[in-house]
Amino acid sequence: MKLIRFGEAGYERPGVIINDDWFDVSQLVKDYDEAFFAGDALVKLEEDIKNAELPKVDKSTRLGSPVCRPSKLVCVGLNYKDHAAETGAAIPVEPILFFKATSAIVGPNDDLIIPKASVKTDWEVELAIVIGRKASYVAEEDAFDHIAGYLLHNDYSERAFQLERNGQWTKGKSCDTFAPLGPFMATKDEIADVHNLRLWLMVNGKMVQDGSTSNLIFNVPFLVSYISQFMTLLPGDVITTGTPAGVGLGQKPEPWYLKPGDVVELGVDCLGNSLQKVKAYQP
Amino acid sequence: MKLIRFGEAGYERPGVIINDDWFDVSQLVKDYDEAFFAGDALVKLEEDIKNAELPKVDKSTRLGSPVCRPSKLVCVGLNYKDHAAETGAAIPVEPILFFKATSAIVGPNDDLIIPKASVKTDWEVELAIVIGRKASYVAEEDAFDHIAGYLLHNDYSERAFQLERNGQWTKGKSCDTFAPLGPFMATKDEIADVHNLRLWLMVNGKMVQDGSTSNLIFNVPFLVSYISQFMTLLPGDVITTGTPAGVGLGQKPEPWYLKPGDVVELGVDCLGNSLQKVKAYQP
Repeated sequence: MKLIRFGEAGYERPGVIINDDWFDVSQLVKDYDEAFFAGDALVKLEEDIKNAELPKVDKSTRLGSPVCRPSKLVCVGLNYKDHAAETGAAIPVEPILFFKATSAIVGPNDDLIIPKASVKTDWEVELAIVIGRKASYVAEEDAFDHIAGYLLHNDYSERAFQLERNGQWTKGKSCDTFAPLGPFMATKDEIADVHNLRLWLMVNGKMVQDGSTSNLIFNVPFLVSYISQFMTLLPGDVITTGTPAGVGLGQKPEPWYLKPGDVVELGVDCLGNSLQKVKAYQP
Repeated sequence: MKLIRFGEAGYERPGVIINDDWFDVSQLVKDYDEAFFAGDALVKLEEDIKNAELPKVDKSTRLGSPVCRPSKLVCVGLNYKDHAAETGAAIPVEPILFFKATSAIVGPNDDLIIPKASVKTDWEVELAIVIGRKASYVAEEDAFDHIAGYLLHNDYSERAFQLERNGQWTKGKSCDTFAPLGPFMATKDEIADVHNLRLWLMVNGKMVQDGSTSNLIFNVPFLVSYISQFMTLLPGDVITTGTPAGVGLGQKPEPWYLKPGDVVELGVDCLGNSLQKVKAYQP
């Protein structure tokens, strides 16, 4: 099943994609939030949509994030060897974890707003995981039981804020519009092999990232298990698994970053594409 | 006004403290959440309680966090000179920011659970700020307009997870029960000078931290303004402002940490006291 949320920002309603068409399921479920994922609502929804007359949604409608604002957006840093190399960092011996503010979450095709005073706004195409069941001290072999599905994420990063403003990456990861999620959440049964998905990103039509989740240093079940040793993952929480080589910071002969007017397009196999137009901050 | 939330974990109801007695205000407000702080509900509540017959709450009732789970719990690191010195760190040239997972939030007198595999669970008494109005690129002189009130926080930290497990402090800050908040949120009008509050912490009756917010390196309005340059603070969000000297990591002749059976008591002037019993993790 493919879950979407559609409508004006802050007023999104839940929907599903069936054979490329969009349908409104707000008569069946309130929203794709913690309570939804915590219960058996996903299984029930799959049954219910078979029997319901669902209103069709016009495909020009804005998409929001496919999941409601989660309790946390946990990020894994330097999780592809080629990306660690391009940033000059060592291969991590265990996963590097950090958070993005959930206030950074936007729809997949919303504008990317370059923060005031930013000079190094950068892109990062990533595979993200949606937690389906509370996870605390989960064993690696049980990790998939705690996953609801997957989605596409662009982990926008302001490199000066992240690396040149005194410690911890938080400042460069949490700006508004820095976490476009979607277009849809694919339930895990839709993905034959989550460790064999191509992921790519283009800036103004030029391919800059072109990798595969087969090159993840720490794979999906390991990450869920690992993170759950340090904190409880709640239903609906999102984990984003890191980016392959080709970010602005890693460009040769020298780094380059986004500017107003640029267009960023990205995708992951089976998880759709998204597109962000780059705009300057306007008070 | 002093806001409390009382009742079983996950089922707390909103209340207020009047002349040391606790009253249930759930007939007047749904809860102290983002919607509550975003509206004029705080002002309205102050009016409404004058005219309402409020049921009294037995003071043996469990207290939860005085505010609902916020969108984020933003932390400021090394914000007292004496604490920076005891950890061997330089005085920060600008604030160090990081997040605690909001799943770590518990009531003020709930047990502290030492995480599985932890050997360095440490304490940090802190003054925390509750945001009352959305804050994005706020000027320092306008910062107080965006504050609803203040509360007591113990920023529990696992030093091995934080400092010895490969980059970023997240892992040592986000464990379950690592963020006791309260006993109550004092609205900002209750605090004559937020930069002149004593804060203290005892382990098993021994005073280990005894400082004053007069020694904050970066003060309250500066922090709200500063953080709002990197992310939007939402109503109900919590900022915790850092800890003075005397944490376990800084003890002489050598560091020592919490063990099951220990009792941690702490307080900030005008914001009450809290007490956590230390327990081992039990599956």
